[in-house]
Amino acid sequence: MPHIALNSAEPGIRGLLRYRPETARPLGELTEVLLRGPSTLTRGERELIAAYVSALNDCQYCTSSHSAYAAAQLPGGMALVEQVRSDPAAAPVTPALKALLAIAAAVQQGGRAVTAGHVASARAAGATDLEIHDTVLIAAMFCMFNRYVDGLATIAPDDPAVYAAGAQHIVTHGYVPPPAG
Amino acid sequence: MPHIALNSAEPGIRGLLRYRPETARPLGELTEVLLRGPSTLTRGERELIAAYVSALNDCQYCTSSHSAYAAAQLPGGMALVEQVRSDPAAAPVTPALKALLAIAAAVQQGGRAVTAGHVASARAAGATDLEIHDTVLIAAMFCMFNRYVDGLATIAPDDPAVYAAGAQHIVTHGYVPPPAG
Repeated sequence: MPHIALNSAEPGIRGLLRYRPETARPLGELTEVLLRGPSTLTRGERELIAAYVSALNDCQYCTSSHSAYAAAQLPGGMALVEQVRSDPAAAPVTPALKALLAIAAAVQQGGRAVTAGHVASARAAGATDLEIHDTVLIAAMFCMFNRYVDGLATIAPDDPAVYAAGAQHIVTHGYVPPPAG
Repeated sequence: MPHIALNSAEPGIRGLLRYRPETARPLGELTEVLLRGPSTLTRGERELIAAYVSALNDCQYCTSSHSAYAAAQLPGGMALVEQVRSDPAAAPVTPALKALLAIAAAVQQGGRAVTAGHVASARAAGATDLEIHDTVLIAAMFCMFNRYVDGLATIAPDDPAVYAAGAQHIVTHGYVPPPAG
């Protein structure tokens, strides 16, 4: 049961966005820009970073959601997402994405954990400065979302169909804020 | 030196906001709503939560900035800010704010560290559900900002005058995004 009385029975962050539309709007816009806006990283790759960081933070709702969204937008599907979550260094992704995932894991530990070596490795693998920037901010953003969702003890459904349906919605409509009513 | 080539010499998050105006806009709006929008928590109290979490995350730029912004908007000034940062349980703040600072410290550790006991203590001290919500989201937001600022190794000036000048700007103008140019 959530720690506070929400105004809907919606699970995870959805209930929080409906409860506080003033913060939902910029949160939705930030997510849309970073995960779906113009980028040399695919939408699937960016959702993979989101799912990976959420798993490191042990946030069930966000991990299940963004794993489903990544799987829906990556040729490797859920099998690839699970490989990345369990052993990113061995997963069949590009060297650049592998290096970016290592940066994301460092960000999850804390900002100072990102070293010049992490950044040099990413550059050597072909990552651009903007990709490095966005990876750091995506990972940091999920350190916020994971704490928001679990810090208020929101509900995470067990049924994978809930997250698969969510994926269809996100792929089609994006991260638009919910209606204020 | 920052990990990536920015397009200005501005320190801390300011250089990052100028580098990526597409994300700067929602980040500025989110901060404005949470730290300066309508609330039963004062602006000084909300900046105090920001400074406290930033100190727990060992982020020099954000700690110095939000300590200055809190000091400029609290009757107790910088002495109070330093008391809260070193020993919040003993600091001369209201019981409700003390309980909210304890929630913020739990969020910094991770979302699951916030217990029903933390929330019950805050309610018993008079905190509302919206204040509890906003405290969790402010703390989570600074877990993002601190990682963004340090994950890209931005510069944190040593001179306190830089942060005092920043405080005057924020108190007067708020968290509007920087110009895109």
